[in-house]
Amino acid sequence: MDLKDSITECAVSFGDLDPMLIVWHGNYFGFMELGREAFGKHNDLDAMAMYDLGYFTPVVRSIIDHKAPLVYGDVVTIRTWMQPSPAAKILLHYEMRNKATDQIVATAETVQVFLDKERKLMIDLPEFYRAWKELKSS
Amino acid sequence: MDLKDSITECAVSFGDLDPMLIVWHGNYFGFMELGREAFGKHNDLDAMAMYDLGYFTPVVRSIIDHKAPLVYGDVVTIRTWMQPSPAAKILLHYEMRNKATDQIVATAETVQVFLDKERKLMIDLPEFYRAWKELKSS
Amino acid sequence: MDLKDSITECAVSFGDLDPMLIVWHGNYFGFMELGREAFGKHNDLDAMAMYDLGYFTPVVRSIIDHKAPLVYGDVVTIRTWMQPSPAAKILLHYEMRNKATDQIVATAETVQVFLDKERKLMIDLPEFYRAWKELKSS
Amino acid sequence: MDLKDSITECAVSFGDLDPMLIVWHGNYFGFMELGREAFGKHNDLDAMAMYDLGYFTPVVRSIIDHKAPLVYGDVVTIRTWMQPSPAAKILLHYEMRNKATDQIVATAETVQVFLDKERKLMIDLPEFYRAWKELKSS
Repeated sequence: MDLKDSITECAVSFGDLDPMLIVWHGNYFGFMELGREAFGKHNDLDAMAMYDLGYFTPVVRSIIDHKAPLVYGDVVTIRTWMQPSPAAKILLHYEMRNKATDQIVATAETVQVFLDKERKLMIDLPEFYRAWKELKSS
Repeated sequence: MDLKDSITECAVSFGDLDPMLIVWHGNYFGFMELGREAFGKHNDLDAMAMYDLGYFTPVVRSIIDHKAPLVYGDVVTIRTWMQPSPAAKILLHYEMRNKATDQIVATAETVQVFLDKERKLMIDLPEFYRAWKELKSS
Repeated sequence: MDLKDSITECAVSFGDLDPMLIVWHGNYFGFMELGREAFGKHNDLDAMAMYDLGYFTPVVRSIIDHKAPLVYGDVVTIRTWMQPSPAAKILLHYEMRNKATDQIVATAETVQVFLDKERKLMIDLPEFYRAWKELKSS
Repeated sequence: MDLKDSITECAVSFGDLDPMLIVWHGNYFGFMELGREAFGKHNDLDAMAMYDLGYFTPVVRSIIDHKAPLVYGDVVTIRTWMQPSPAAKILLHYEMRNKATDQIVATAETVQVFLDKERKLMIDLPEFYRAWKELKSS
């Protein structure tokens, strides 16, 4: 598939910090969400558009590895890309770096599945997603 | 080691929900933190006490698997236990269930390391932690 | 109206803290939400039930006054009560105390309005709310 | 005083939304924090610098008025300015607008006080703040 990596960024704010004066690990989920949305926008796969079509794409698995801390004043860049899969799943990878030093601060991956309008897990690809994959493969 | 599993619980609130009307996946980090704190209290290994001793124990790896959604009105129970390790790491496991149905909604694990007063990664166990392990092994 | 104050409580967790080692002021919104939900449950005015009926009740005004900090290990109790109003508004008051000392840590109030199914602001009381008020006044 | 208003912006993300598909009211505290930090940077009054000097400046009062909702895809701009005060307080005002339409979505204000190294409330201005005010008044 011809998909573009996306890169977006986010400044660390005071409220992101925990008592260790580093970004609380739970807040990286927010960075990953920014990455996921940027990826969707760059590749015509918008979460809200899927939602409007009646599909839900909940995250069912997340793995985050922290390599270095982020502190106040840092800006984090989030590169996001898709791992192609024949299954009815969306596999995304994230690489987060300290913008000023280019040091990797965390890597992560998420797995999303598709739920239909009755919130049942879909085994087959939804039609819109199949069409999107074909479009991106041509 | 003679460690006790801990069980704590938390009610789902309206603000935990995302537009799919289920608990936003990022909020499970909060449940896990409640579990981690309950585990520490049940086993004399309190995060703030370590912090006061000058040690930081940041989470460097998290894995979360979601099995079923949580919705408004649900109460989640979080069981937390430690996987013994000879290394200078704290390995915790979490099992989250829907209290009313006893259905597993998510499983998770975290890895924490020790940083010393200069925020350097510790290769050896901090003295207080070695003493704690011995106390719990006797 | 014959409405009951509600009292609920919540333990402060490590992730609630900011670098000052006190609960970050923005997290009091979460405590207030717990209070609001407890009030609704005690008085048969559940947010999700209103939502299911097609009504939205967004918070349009919040005021919070902080009197004392909350730290790790504290439990906050949240007392919530309604200020009667003839207008199509829900006025709630919150008093938050440190459970161990009974010291008031914050007081707050919120104003909510009603939106109809088209998300238009309602000038008149929704029928279900008028019925609820009559039930509670009898 | 010769202080500059600051303007910063933030994109609404999926996780900011509540079940009404609008930004959860509690998340506006995050926007205000971005505004406060931008104001500090534009006017040489950085929160972390004060923190490093040993002063804490907790928010003791917040008022937020919501005028219109923010939805997915919106970008919010936050204008922040200071209301001069002879007291040992920092009074900030915030005006949040939908960037695309320039519609005001919320207005807010916060009051911060100064705590000294022992976390005692300061009645007089800290020396660094007095110096800063003189610098900005000259």
